Amino acid sequence: MIVTVFGGSGFIGSRLIARLLDSGHTLRVFDRSFSIDRYPGVEGRLKHYPGDFSNQTDFSEIVEGSDIVFHLISTTLPSGSNNNPVADIQGNLVPTIRLLESMKQCGVSRLVFPSSGGTVYGEAQYLPIDERHPTQPIVSYGATKLAIEKYLAIYRNAFDFHPISLRISNPYGPGFRLGSSQGAVGAFLLKAMTKKPIDIWGTGEIRRDYIYIEDLIDAMEASMTFKGSEMVFNISTGIGTSLLELIDLIQKVTGEEMSVNHFHNRSFDVQTNILDRSLASSQLGWQPATSLLQGVEMTWAWLQKNSNSALEKT
Amino acid sequence: MIVTVFGGSGFIGSRLIARLLDSGHTLRVFDRSFSIDRYPGVEGRLKHYPGDFSNQTDFSEIVEGSDIVFHLISTTLPSGSNNNPVADIQGNLVPTIRLLESMKQCGVSRLVFPSSGGTVYGEAQYLPIDERHPTQPIVSYGATKLAIEKYLAIYRNAFDFHPISLRISNPYGPGFRLGSSQGAVGAFLLKAMTKKPIDIWGTGEIRRDYIYIEDLIDAMEASMTFKGSEMVFNISTGIGTSLLELIDLIQKVTGEEMSVNHFHNRSFDVQTNILDRSLASSQLGWQPATSLLQGVEMTWAWLQKNSNSALEKT
Repeated sequence: MIVTVFGGSGFIGSRLIARLLDSGHTLRVFDRSFSIDRYPGVEGRLKHYPGDFSNQTDFSEIVEGSDIVFHLISTTLPSGSNNNPVADIQGNLVPTIRLLESMKQCGVSRLVFPSSGGTVYGEAQYLPIDERHPTQPIVSYGATKLAIEKYLAIYRNAFDFHPISLRISNPYGPGFRLGSSQGAVGAFLLKAMTKKPIDIWGTGEIRRDYIYIEDLIDAMEASMTFKGSEMVFNISTGIGTSLLELIDLIQKVTGEEMSVNHFHNRSFDVQTNILDRSLASSQLGWQPATSLLQGVEMTWAWLQKNSNSALEKT
Repeated sequence: MIVTVFGGSGFIGSRLIARLLDSGHTLRVFDRSFSIDRYPGVEGRLKHYPGDFSNQTDFSEIVEGSDIVFHLISTTLPSGSNNNPVADIQGNLVPTIRLLESMKQCGVSRLVFPSSGGTVYGEAQYLPIDERHPTQPIVSYGATKLAIEKYLAIYRNAFDFHPISLRISNPYGPGFRLGSSQGAVGAFLLKAMTKKPIDIWGTGEIRRDYIYIEDLIDAMEASMTFKGSEMVFNISTGIGTSLLELIDLIQKVTGEEMSVNHFHNRSFDVQTNILDRSLASSQLGWQPATSLLQGVEMTWAWLQKNSNSALEKT
């Protein structure tokens, strides 16, 4: 297949591209910057289209002839998005509509969009959260993700279009972005490696549903050929882990004794986020294969191998 | 109270302003154009702030010191919004966020926002539609209204802010905008007066929930002092009327025999839209007082009195 990936240099994008190349697909990658050298030996199956997603008005040249598009670009983070919702809308929602218009014009009918299982629902009214749970984001990041989901459905109604939104829980694993503020697993492992204390907001009872990156990529691959009528899937383990439990597990895996600084709760964190993955399992035939212990062990092993670059960036 | 109304020259805005003036409030009206002369004898209680909502970036001067804001501006119609969703977002969602930012800066904590009961839900999965019904708009108009609702909730979480979204069904009544493409009651009465055939899309089985304008204004007034925790209310009668039934009723009221041209269904019309108003009744202590027969009679009487201007505009 000809697969076009918007956003190929981030954590998920990098792993997705590696997998898609392994599976024999031909790839186009739209991103501001992208190191094609990271994927040697792909013999013309990978092309970089440089560009600024927020400022581009027409994506026809990039999507024309694609069998499927993955749209992984996000210009904001959950934590900062409330500081400037207009920039969030202008940088994410508006250019995504332009991408949909280009896909419509070119007759490119399949799109996989990673939405945000952690922010579109808001505070859990019941657990685990399924796809029918009310959506009441408390951050702009979640509101724009949700608005994009709604527009995907509108475009499905307007032409022969098959969009899939994956409401992903908290991905982690080898290749996570060192120095990024996202992702407790990676951040805490880095603290273990550098023997620094962990900063957490609140008591540590905040529970999250951590999904191993390769399991997530499995779900993304499974979405590529999905033919059913559902459009929105939770991609998660369905298992909640508190920050304190995670720290405990990381201490076991790394053999490091961790100290913890507690700060006040942040207004943009929901307390508990555990997602029901039943629909994805029944419809996509997908399930996660990696336990949190296994995943943390693999991430730790990767981090130790890459410790030089890891330490440089902290 | 000092009440600021964004959008004062439309159907709902005009009636709201008349009522608020009757109730003794002091009004500021933001709109591109506005005829203050239409409201004689209000002795300095009404001021017009001219401006273009879509292009204004700061609304502080207008909202500063207000007790409450009504935001009635919409730059698109349901029927046309899918032709240019980017313009819909830029013209409605983005400036609304700017309005919210200005309200936050000025500490203006109450907002009433007329959302769209006819478009935020999409196709009915059950009837009547209550506020917990899934929201899957099939037009951009509904998606931007819904996105605004979500941002209202985000701002409520971020400061002492009390927004109310009213998901209004189909308002009609005296003062409707002659020549507007919105509103079957007014459009059909105008056809009766001018003895022209009615154009309808589909078989005429499309069912809508028509709410008399003064009943809607009652609900808007009731929202001004609401202190509860709910944020979203259907404002409707809960009674569905098909287009054919409406035509039948209009024939009875006007004594005119109407002929009907049938056209193909339009892709942006949902089949049935009947809203459950229980929540508004229990929380706002509001209920509609006007039957469709009474409302059509009053609208017909008004139209006949205003027939000169009505006929000029058609």
